[in-house]
Amino acid sequence: MPTRITGVQVRDIRFPTSRELQGSDAMNADPDYSAAYVVLTTDSARGLEGHGLTFTIGRGNEVCVAAVNAIKPLVLGRSLEGWTANMGLFWREITGDSQLRWIGPEKGAIHMATAAVVNAVWDLYAKAEGKPLWKLLADMTPAQLVACIDFRYITDALTPDEARAILERNQSTKAAREAEMMRDGYPACREGLAAGWSHFKMKVGRDIADDVRRAGVIRAEIGPGRKLMMDANQCWDVGTAIENMKRLARFEPWWIEEPTSPDDVLGHAAIARALEPLGIGVATGEHCQNRVIFKQLLQARAINFCQIDSCRLGGVNEVLAVYLLARKFGVPVCPHAGGVGLCEYVQHLSIWDYIAVSASLEDRIIEYVDHLHEHFVDPVRMRNGRYMPPTAPGYSITMKAESLDEYEYPGGKAWR
Amino acid sequence: MPTRITGVQVRDIRFPTSRELQGSDAMNADPDYSAAYVVLTTDSARGLEGHGLTFTIGRGNEVCVAAVNAIKPLVLGRSLEGWTANMGLFWREITGDSQLRWIGPEKGAIHMATAAVVNAVWDLYAKAEGKPLWKLLADMTPAQLVACIDFRYITDALTPDEARAILERNQSTKAAREAEMMRDGYPACREGLAAGWSHFKMKVGRDIADDVRRAGVIRAEIGPGRKLMMDANQCWDVGTAIENMKRLARFEPWWIEEPTSPDDVLGHAAIARALEPLGIGVATGEHCQNRVIFKQLLQARAINFCQIDSCRLGGVNEVLAVYLLARKFGVPVCPHAGGVGLCEYVQHLSIWDYIAVSASLEDRIIEYVDHLHEHFVDPVRMRNGRYMPPTAPGYSITMKAESLDEYEYPGGKAWR
Repeated sequence: MPTRITGVQVRDIRFPTSRELQGSDAMNADPDYSAAYVVLTTDSARGLEGHGLTFTIGRGNEVCVAAVNAIKPLVLGRSLEGWTANMGLFWREITGDSQLRWIGPEKGAIHMATAAVVNAVWDLYAKAEGKPLWKLLADMTPAQLVACIDFRYITDALTPDEARAILERNQSTKAAREAEMMRDGYPACREGLAAGWSHFKMKVGRDIADDVRRAGVIRAEIGPGRKLMMDANQCWDVGTAIENMKRLARFEPWWIEEPTSPDDVLGHAAIARALEPLGIGVATGEHCQNRVIFKQLLQARAINFCQIDSCRLGGVNEVLAVYLLARKFGVPVCPHAGGVGLCEYVQHLSIWDYIAVSASLEDRIIEYVDHLHEHFVDPVRMRNGRYMPPTAPGYSITMKAESLDEYEYPGGKAWR
Repeated sequence: MPTRITGVQVRDIRFPTSRELQGSDAMNADPDYSAAYVVLTTDSARGLEGHGLTFTIGRGNEVCVAAVNAIKPLVLGRSLEGWTANMGLFWREITGDSQLRWIGPEKGAIHMATAAVVNAVWDLYAKAEGKPLWKLLADMTPAQLVACIDFRYITDALTPDEARAILERNQSTKAAREAEMMRDGYPACREGLAAGWSHFKMKVGRDIADDVRRAGVIRAEIGPGRKLMMDANQCWDVGTAIENMKRLARFEPWWIEEPTSPDDVLGHAAIARALEPLGIGVATGEHCQNRVIFKQLLQARAINFCQIDSCRLGGVNEVLAVYLLARKFGVPVCPHAGGVGLCEYVQHLSIWDYIAVSASLEDRIIEYVDHLHEHFVDPVRMRNGRYMPPTAPGYSITMKAESLDEYEYPGGKAWR
């Protein structure tokens, strides 16, 4: 019996985080961490549902909700098994509507909405298989994984055969890494200072003199051994980024994150070339719209760290493509997290990456921010600064019913 | 007395063009030419209104409508004179909302909505000055034009001083070119064959054997002297684009348009390098999201023709930036038109370009498609295959009230 999609609900969920200025930075002054939250209901006798969300920072969340509603007809009435038999085709169908494509293609609100829906389908798939998403992916054969990916526009950098070869390389040793993950977890970094953490991040970009002052304080505090990341949140033009990072180089930043526009492949490449002699890496990706931009960042040697976002890319299928591209170019993936739900999402991706793709933890971390996890049914579990692998079936993104009700915008109690 | 914005209305206008397959191609199978149509009402004693639209091809138009509504609070209650005193700041404010920015930045539905609003402001500005938009722009000093542009993220390719120098170069001879435009108009190209036209465009990308066959027929029909453009509408990967254009080279295409993903700067550069020895230029831009992408296409020498879209770029301010970037890199701008309203919009831009920026018509044309013009109050006027400069004040995008009522989706008569 196929599992058919009988309903697509989307809700506008917003947390009033700007009241406490959680997560503010030079570019994003007052975020209200928000989600266009999707539930796929089915006719499954087990009552299976697929949950997914796309993350925004407040205003504009309703635009993503409208975009999910635009995608709804592509999903309603379809069967999970029809999709999982050919996941590449599923992706092509959900991103290929000949009219919707115009308002992307594969970028902006429509692509973020695609992520919410695609991730909900993967959540449903993992629940149907009784596995956490990372395990579902880790158990797939190389051929099955490759079949999930739309190679359109990336074959000049990665062919299906190359992707398959990358996956086959570490196939026989997956079990050992899975056991290691279950035992030790995946390393995290966090903003601010705390015992047991080895990576710290500071915001820069508002004022270079103040950035220099604070970098000095922080480096003195964490000592020379720990890694310090800097995040400019797109504040700078290319030339300014280079000048300012030369001034900050003496505090030995491990990377500069989002030094300029996320659309600027050549700009990132120029910055990377200028900072390489100083030992500073370039990291970007949380605002990079799709696999075509990541392909170019990698081809141009513009990034040393690839920071995919699990719901700005159009969901799991496209994320798989970028992890494999990054692997081909020898660049570690350190996914963007924080916000609401991003930590829950990306732990699955990086754990799968370690087991099936990279087989390495070198230079790899997942961001960690300690808020809003209480709204999730199966929140992240941290131990000694590491993400412990989820064990419940699905993609860990299901939110508590009472949280959804309380934070629904504008009718929920938190907003009334 | 300042002119204050008292209302922002946005309507979902769709023309059922898919019923007759107007404008279909390999990627866009069944477009319903549509517009998120914006009216800014004011407290002006003259009853001034600003009209603007963003063009879509049907489904998803409602997402752009939602995005216009998200922008509305940034506009309502503001004064035209406050904006025109500092147009660069106006742009920064309307694209810089710290929360809305997340669902772009400056791309997709939110940026297309920005265009509708920004263009409505320019329409209002031109009406207030009693000039057609091209004349408003042509009468500005270089300093005034430069002040309209947000140079964020493009200073590594074009500084304000360089932009000013470009504009000053042809300042003293503007009057002669304006007179020439009024007399002769601006050259157009069109799809299909007709007397008096020198440029023709054919669609390719569905099937290369059929493309070769049709190219042979068309070249035989138009003879060796006229220019033949080919448009692949993003159908190909980089390698395929190069292979297929080598097969089509014997029909002497002037350019290949949209050979691959509009996000792929490096891909376009590879294609341009491969096709240069064959004498085939690369054209792209109708799907290029913002000035940062155009900057890179120009820096990488990836395009020989720059095809800006007047409402995918975020409106006049950003369009000015791209024309000046293109001028610096010596690349002619041939704007995307067709659809609904695009011909009405872009004639202003190219006429201004000729008068104030390029001072050249070489390798420059505006697309022309002969449909839906009857819905405009001040439609384009063609003479001998040339656009004749509009004379009515504004940006020529005001639609007839009865057309708006009839084609409003889903309630208008055309859709009931």
